[in-house]
Amino acid sequence: MVEEKDLALLVDLYELTMAQAYWAESMNDTAVFSLFFRKLPPHRNFMLACGQQHIAHIIESLRFSQEHIDRLRRLDRFDNDFLDWLRRFRFTGSIHALSEGTPVFPQEPLLEIEAPIAEAQLLETLVMNYVHLETVLASKAARLTLAANGKPVIDFGTRRMHGTDAAYRGIRAFRMGGLSGTSNVLAGLDFDLPIRGTMAHSFVQACGDEMAAFRTYARLYPGTTLLVDTYDTERAVADIIDWLKAEPEVDIGAIRLDSGDMAEMAIRCRRMLDDAGLTQIRILASGGLDEYRIDDYRRNDVPLDGFGVGTAVGVSNDAPTLELAYKLTEYAGKPRMKNSPGKQSYPGRKQVYRRQDADGRYLGDHITHREEAADGTPLLVPTMRAGRAIVDAIRPLAEAAEYCRDAVAALPPAQRALEDAEPYPVVISDRLRDLQSHTLQQVRPHPPASDQ
Amino acid sequence: MVEEKDLALLVDLYELTMAQAYWAESMNDTAVFSLFFRKLPPHRNFMLACGQQHIAHIIESLRFSQEHIDRLRRLDRFDNDFLDWLRRFRFTGSIHALSEGTPVFPQEPLLEIEAPIAEAQLLETLVMNYVHLETVLASKAARLTLAANGKPVIDFGTRRMHGTDAAYRGIRAFRMGGLSGTSNVLAGLDFDLPIRGTMAHSFVQACGDEMAAFRTYARLYPGTTLLVDTYDTERAVADIIDWLKAEPEVDIGAIRLDSGDMAEMAIRCRRMLDDAGLTQIRILASGGLDEYRIDDYRRNDVPLDGFGVGTAVGVSNDAPTLELAYKLTEYAGKPRMKNSPGKQSYPGRKQVYRRQDADGRYLGDHITHREEAADGTPLLVPTMRAGRAIVDAIRPLAEAAEYCRDAVAALPPAQRALEDAEPYPVVISDRLRDLQSHTLQQVRPHPPASDQ
Repeated sequence: MVEEKDLALLVDLYELTMAQAYWAESMNDTAVFSLFFRKLPPHRNFMLACGQQHIAHIIESLRFSQEHIDRLRRLDRFDNDFLDWLRRFRFTGSIHALSEGTPVFPQEPLLEIEAPIAEAQLLETLVMNYVHLETVLASKAARLTLAANGKPVIDFGTRRMHGTDAAYRGIRAFRMGGLSGTSNVLAGLDFDLPIRGTMAHSFVQACGDEMAAFRTYARLYPGTTLLVDTYDTERAVADIIDWLKAEPEVDIGAIRLDSGDMAEMAIRCRRMLDDAGLTQIRILASGGLDEYRIDDYRRNDVPLDGFGVGTAVGVSNDAPTLELAYKLTEYAGKPRMKNSPGKQSYPGRKQVYRRQDADGRYLGDHITHREEAADGTPLLVPTMRAGRAIVDAIRPLAEAAEYCRDAVAALPPAQRALEDAEPYPVVISDRLRDLQSHTLQQVRPHPPASDQ
Repeated sequence: MVEEKDLALLVDLYELTMAQAYWAESMNDTAVFSLFFRKLPPHRNFMLACGQQHIAHIIESLRFSQEHIDRLRRLDRFDNDFLDWLRRFRFTGSIHALSEGTPVFPQEPLLEIEAPIAEAQLLETLVMNYVHLETVLASKAARLTLAANGKPVIDFGTRRMHGTDAAYRGIRAFRMGGLSGTSNVLAGLDFDLPIRGTMAHSFVQACGDEMAAFRTYARLYPGTTLLVDTYDTERAVADIIDWLKAEPEVDIGAIRLDSGDMAEMAIRCRRMLDDAGLTQIRILASGGLDEYRIDDYRRNDVPLDGFGVGTAVGVSNDAPTLELAYKLTEYAGKPRMKNSPGKQSYPGRKQVYRRQDADGRYLGDHITHREEAADGTPLLVPTMRAGRAIVDAIRPLAEAAEYCRDAVAALPPAQRALEDAEPYPVVISDRLRDLQSHTLQQVRPHPPASDQ
């Protein structure tokens, strides 16, 4: 697996060839790169910006070791003097970023990096890989949290998440998005998210006798959850009821359904348990759940008390990617942009202002030039300066998750719904629009080919 | 990020609580767990088994450190004697597995693990996380390779792959699936896959003058690829032609299109280049490509010579997960299975026999009990014994990738097509079917509830 010391090489080759070209041409001026997306993925009404904390850490510590340099030398593409420059590489630039957990919309920078151009270019691949994963997964988690409407949603996704890094940083993103717990021991410990787990079917099968399996778990883990669908769900629940009638001191917290028609089975099991006076035993569901099914259970008052979600949240299955772009918007003090069909962007450094009503609800955003004033709260704040993280600017995870919860609650109802909504109001300032048309004229050094 | 030394804790909590329960109940008998899937993901006619090499390595080296033990102790769920057992944990079991790169179909084990049950249970999460990622990504890569029909497909996906582990092990899987190169420097170096890259739009924008950008690259990187769509593609190509007429010694290998109607633009650019006698300059495409678009270009004879693919291959965007299951099929010498609705499986240790015609083409598979004989080649081979990898049983990557290429070529044409095919013929042996119905009767300790 990749070790942190090798992250500097986890980079697209062209970052290195471009860096060498800047170096060869003595292009050392300050560049501004903006990380943003042009449109929301399918089924998303907002995204949650996430990943700032990890980004600050990896940027501060990114180094090309002598071993890296030796490996690059063997590629026969790099000049020795440039490799010496790489060996001494330290990021010296600054970053403005949205606070982690901020809802973000198309064209709004998640972060802007300002640095000598070669330095900023070298960060592209890693910054995107880090922010992309955490933003995509936090945003999916937020939808599940909204659908569950206060009931706990537990992440069971580790086995189908894409590799170990996703199954670690992703769980942090799930906490940001409001999930209540995870099955992942390491990530739960490191990110202080409650660690949850029940039993697998294999345990019941190995014990052979289902009731023997249940008794063992109840003895070892008071308040445990029993998995009841290995052979015959209603039979298992009836057996549990008989058992608890005979031994009322046994402490069972919940039963878990993992297959079949869970709505119907939950209703039946709830009735059986309630009729036996076991109203305190909760019913949890898992197995192929996503926000739509959870929302459906809620609308139909299905008596389910919590949800274990695996695949859907683990890879954000309906929208596993976000078309994040890392674009040059300024170099040597001059605005820059490209003119590729369908890929225009706005040049210059930016700020995003978010307006709220008297109750704190979000009314809409204004994307401006960094130096413009506008109504509302400026969302991009300095998080790195001269290559060092501004520690106070990056909220601790617990605080960020709380901020995120409040921010999602402050979104308009249409954005909080699962169904596709009309876009959240985002206005581009006149100054940015003027800068765009002005820059567009400048970047056409020739008249169009068809005029010749 | 996760370090290899901490992988033992990257586990679902229930693996640990079940292991403790087995330990507490002195259940030390040998279990057989089978890793398989019940159905193919959407748009897949086969999957490529991948991940064996990494699995063997992590299983051999998996250890609970004293620090892990101390952290687990604080969860207040584990007995000190059990934690001592964990501290001494070494995998002592054996594994039978498909060779890496083997096409695999529903119900066929990708691997079977035999070990004292607690040991085998503890491996579940990691084995699935590892095999899932590599199998999903290798399978997607194979579709792109098939669509490109001999033309090179280069992975540009690192920025949108899910974290750093995916963006490393995933590139190995891409090599297995037949991709020709990657932009990822570290993975390209470690997995000996050609490393490719051109320039980004930001380079052209920073230089301001597009031709200055092209000249710099041509000087530094003879045979380079020039990105021509930053401002106006045809204008850029016309400028390149003028330049090469004036300086015919300049060595340009290719141009890259990254936006717009690529088919139309490729035809126009090809004509311009050919008319200028520059037939040796290739045209590469990137930007939102997937196997369907590449196949479409092929069917329409669009003059594109290679493809850079990012998002689609990076997360296997149309099928980012596979419903891999890790199921107990035997314990203490007795077959085991569950009876959850829609989730039945076949008990017992298994073998898969693949029949081929005289030309080596695959005719169909036979899933049998491990001890049964059948026609064809047995595909599950021992890869670990007594906790140690059988080194000769795991092919080196280059050899595995070659085997994989031949195996994909040996599939029936329907399986190699991009469109959904009739299932590949897989027959379950009578003995396994009998074992299933026999076990089904045994695992019902009570008559169904409705009979009482």
